[in-house]
Amino acid sequence: MTDHDDNLRSVAKRVGFFHQTAENYGGEGGLWTLGPHGTGVKRRIENDWRQRFTVEEGHVEIEAPTVMGEAVFEASGHLDGFDDMLVECPQCGQSERADHIVEDNTGIEEAESLPNEEVESLIAEHELVCPECGTDLTGQSVIDHNLMFETSIGPGSSTPGYLRPETAQGIFADFHRLKQYENKQLPFAVTQIGRSYRNEISPRGGLERLREFTQAELEHFIDPAKHEPDLERVREVPVTLYPSEAQQADDGAPFDTTIGEAVDEGVIADPWIAYYIGIAKEWYVRIGIDPARLRFRQHQPDERAHYASDCWDAETEIDSDWLEVTGFADRGSYDLRKHGAHTGDETAYQIFRPFDAPRTEEQVVVDPDMSVIGPEFGEQADAVKQALERKGAADPSAFDGDTVTVELGNGEVTVPTDAVDVERVEVTKEGDHEHPKIIEPSFGIDRIVYSVLHHALEVDAVPGSDDQRTVMSLDPVVAPTLAAVLPLRDTVDDAARSLADELRSAGLPVEFDAGGRIGRRYRRQDEAGTPFCVTVDPEGVVDGSVERVTIRDRDSTAQVWVPVEDLAAELTALQAGAREFDDLLEAYQIRTEPKAEAA
Amino acid sequence: MTDHDDNLRSVAKRVGFFHQTAENYGGEGGLWTLGPHGTGVKRRIENDWRQRFTVEEGHVEIEAPTVMGEAVFEASGHLDGFDDMLVECPQCGQSERADHIVEDNTGIEEAESLPNEEVESLIAEHELVCPECGTDLTGQSVIDHNLMFETSIGPGSSTPGYLRPETAQGIFADFHRLKQYENKQLPFAVTQIGRSYRNEISPRGGLERLREFTQAELEHFIDPAKHEPDLERVREVPVTLYPSEAQQADDGAPFDTTIGEAVDEGVIADPWIAYYIGIAKEWYVRIGIDPARLRFRQHQPDERAHYASDCWDAETEIDSDWLEVTGFADRGSYDLRKHGAHTGDETAYQIFRPFDAPRTEEQVVVDPDMSVIGPEFGEQADAVKQALERKGAADPSAFDGDTVTVELGNGEVTVPTDAVDVERVEVTKEGDHEHPKIIEPSFGIDRIVYSVLHHALEVDAVPGSDDQRTVMSLDPVVAPTLAAVLPLRDTVDDAARSLADELRSAGLPVEFDAGGRIGRRYRRQDEAGTPFCVTVDPEGVVDGSVERVTIRDRDSTAQVWVPVEDLAAELTALQAGAREFDDLLEAYQIRTEPKAEAA
Repeated sequence: MTDHDDNLRSVAKRVGFFHQTAENYGGEGGLWTLGPHGTGVKRRIENDWRQRFTVEEGHVEIEAPTVMGEAVFEASGHLDGFDDMLVECPQCGQSERADHIVEDNTGIEEAESLPNEEVESLIAEHELVCPECGTDLTGQSVIDHNLMFETSIGPGSSTPGYLRPETAQGIFADFHRLKQYENKQLPFAVTQIGRSYRNEISPRGGLERLREFTQAELEHFIDPAKHEPDLERVREVPVTLYPSEAQQADDGAPFDTTIGEAVDEGVIADPWIAYYIGIAKEWYVRIGIDPARLRFRQHQPDERAHYASDCWDAETEIDSDWLEVTGFADRGSYDLRKHGAHTGDETAYQIFRPFDAPRTEEQVVVDPDMSVIGPEFGEQADAVKQALERKGAADPSAFDGDTVTVELGNGEVTVPTDAVDVERVEVTKEGDHEHPKIIEPSFGIDRIVYSVLHHALEVDAVPGSDDQRTVMSLDPVVAPTLAAVLPLRDTVDDAARSLADELRSAGLPVEFDAGGRIGRRYRRQDEAGTPFCVTVDPEGVVDGSVERVTIRDRDSTAQVWVPVEDLAAELTALQAGAREFDDLLEAYQIRTEPKAEAA
Repeated sequence: MTDHDDNLRSVAKRVGFFHQTAENYGGEGGLWTLGPHGTGVKRRIENDWRQRFTVEEGHVEIEAPTVMGEAVFEASGHLDGFDDMLVECPQCGQSERADHIVEDNTGIEEAESLPNEEVESLIAEHELVCPECGTDLTGQSVIDHNLMFETSIGPGSSTPGYLRPETAQGIFADFHRLKQYENKQLPFAVTQIGRSYRNEISPRGGLERLREFTQAELEHFIDPAKHEPDLERVREVPVTLYPSEAQQADDGAPFDTTIGEAVDEGVIADPWIAYYIGIAKEWYVRIGIDPARLRFRQHQPDERAHYASDCWDAETEIDSDWLEVTGFADRGSYDLRKHGAHTGDETAYQIFRPFDAPRTEEQVVVDPDMSVIGPEFGEQADAVKQALERKGAADPSAFDGDTVTVELGNGEVTVPTDAVDVERVEVTKEGDHEHPKIIEPSFGIDRIVYSVLHHALEVDAVPGSDDQRTVMSLDPVVAPTLAAVLPLRDTVDDAARSLADELRSAGLPVEFDAGGRIGRRYRRQDEAGTPFCVTVDPEGVVDGSVERVTIRDRDSTAQVWVPVEDLAAELTALQAGAREFDDLLEAYQIRTEPKAEAA
């Protein structure tokens, strides 16, 4: 934890951005609460994401439960393959990530991709110790710890369920229904914003490593042979890229380019991934990520998730570390194939593709002899029969030899071909069923909130003074409070309070603050990231009703004198980015000149 | 399940409002997915709730995790007291709610409030059977089933955690931090919109009984001696009330009144509950709940939750049953007292109330003799010492007798007073610490979505025709799609598609549909609840660019001919309720006259 991070945390706690949940009970690692200001920023970022990635793109949003039954995660591969390496201290009992202990204390990177035994050997070789109590960890087993939170659905423990590790499976498992809403036509995309869970072994830190977090995921289902993204829209977008090759090369480094060049030169292989990196880049900048502290890094082959064939991460710089905030993955058809195999209903997870003209082809109609299959496979006999019939339709030549092997939900069986009557017929088909390919941008909203706050926090001189101030220079588009209404004297408290109520009724997030010296109140709003203060001065109040107010700009501390009938419209335009404060300097009487911001 | 409900479910599945999650895996009771249209309605209702109950009221919103450690729920009383009655069938093993079996098959109401043994006797007496397989349940134990989903935080099972059964505990447990953001001054209110979980025994049905659901909760912290709600604002609001007394009387029935009268006559005892019922009533009607199918029913004394001293439910009529959609509870200071006692930090959950003038009072300064306390209480000795010191400050007379009893986190201990040096001193105090009282409106968002859809669904004649149509007559404020852009001929497909993109960029939720006959497309949008269709007719397209379009009103099927430059502004105004379709009939050329709706 650096000074800057330390400073952010203390501001966050004081102002109400975030704090550890249930501190008075000791708290649990990785469980944090967003206070009023943090929630305000998060809601604005979520809504802006929805507008940009769902509404503007013409996609649809769904909402699936966070708890799902075991079968879904058996199919998705999370039950078996979604593990971290755990080592337990024999002395204090503390559980730790074995790969992190190796990485933190040796020159080795990416220890996560090594086999458990090799990590055990490295611990012994380097005589690594427990970070809590210093006890030697040599000889301790490194075991797989599944990252899903487990629970039971209903009474007893007979129906295991899990908290989803990603929102995506709620989309994939019900693909058959979602495709129906799209008239069974590709391409289409489904988004979801919601909680996901990873039961980390020993998370330290705050919003950057949560056990419960919010994802905004987009699953784009395409036929890569037919569909292309609108690359023209993002061709000129500048990006900093750090491809896998550059990471492996001795003199490799991230470099600046544009989306268009990256596609033309094959740096980003998939045009859909390039497209989403392009629009995401523009979005990050709009919500306040510093483009100089943002890069896109390609996963190295041994680093990718079990379902991905290519993946790029958006990373933000936080005090010289890089934090993954979004993954742009090519998931191929991995998930849909798995759900098809595990439910036994393959076509539910496919799209029917009509041929240009009907095609006639030879097919094998198989008629399994149940007097042989029945006794041999018992309860599974029916499933074997259906699998043989599917095999006949899909791959006639499989029945040419002495045996044929078919896949069941969880394993293969081999059947002698003479237990199956095989008839070869000519069949006319109108089309075939294909699995769509899936491109997935997956955004970690809490880490994006954390990065926006980090990049916005500044300690500078109060413009035109020697005093220091802490400023959270959030853009109006994400600021939790757009404006604070501040009465300058207590004689105008009531008038100012009514004004605040009116602005709230107009839908504007407005705070009222009557407490303390005006300078102190400005400082408090600067720290909370409030872009504008609306000061009610007795001079602007006639017979108890407000006629004119000053609007103060947080960053320049300039003030203008505005008729109250313009106020709501001006604030609305400032929030939407339709106007800048500079426009107000031109339109209204200036009461305080803008001061140059401290460097 | 009635015909109407059946009809809603089939529309819901077909159009994309809701469906059971992971159907292809068999699904789990109580876990449902909102499709694109259902998610659209829910997001609009959530955002409108936020605007009305957070922004307009000047409250703040926070976001706590859904997983919390056991200590929080031990304090809140959910670990011990949050149970349903379970009976298991000895034959088929099905678990059922014992109280429901009794209620469904005898004249008895509210079996939930009876002791388990009495429910066992009723099962035997009435020879009640398993609803699944018909086996006699006589002699089966009725046991408590805790409704919280249990899990473990981190590796192993040493740190039990639970999925929250209400969002509220995330607010109460961190009250010390939230009061700090409010300058430690009452009154203030904190809201939260998020998932909660109840591991129901055997939920049937859809959105009306979910194991995972969304709550919008508001916790208002007040000093009842000092703070009053703004009752004038809601005095005239008409409501249908069904007080506890009327439910118990032989000839009692719900009756119509106003909030003002209900308070004046003492029907609603707490003015804050009356206030929130009033603004909630207006809100329900705005989002599309039929006021004739909405009532407010007071809980009977044996029906209230463990923390509530009074509670009213808002209930909607769904096919002659009444469904609880919101609870308005007086939680007193129950939760804050519990968290104070369990954390051992009582003042963290209190507000400092300054006296008008400082007061001098006698206090006991206690100095426990650790040579006695230490050996007797061992590890707890320090806690006992602190408890004695607190006792001295709070209640000097407790030290008058031979022994003094103090409360620790989890139990009481008694100490002989001669093990404590007691010094009586005069102390001047500036004020004291008091627990705020809590008023809680708690909204079940999914049930509200379900009620809005139920009340909106109509099967009527197509105006001006003998054909039937299914119409989801959702108000523009909650409709998932505001407008569908429909090209009338395929020559204007591209122009219409660009127009849809433009409207989306303006932030409007717009669908594009080029498939099939125009009448069919209107029917599809009627069923999906889309209030307006924007039809692009070749007549309105000049040189490939759209100049005029028709806007069709779903309910009256009237159509007006509108210049495209007015379109985005008119749709925005229609969505916000700033304009009605009737205003467009006056402003523009009418292409199809409004048809009277079928009765």
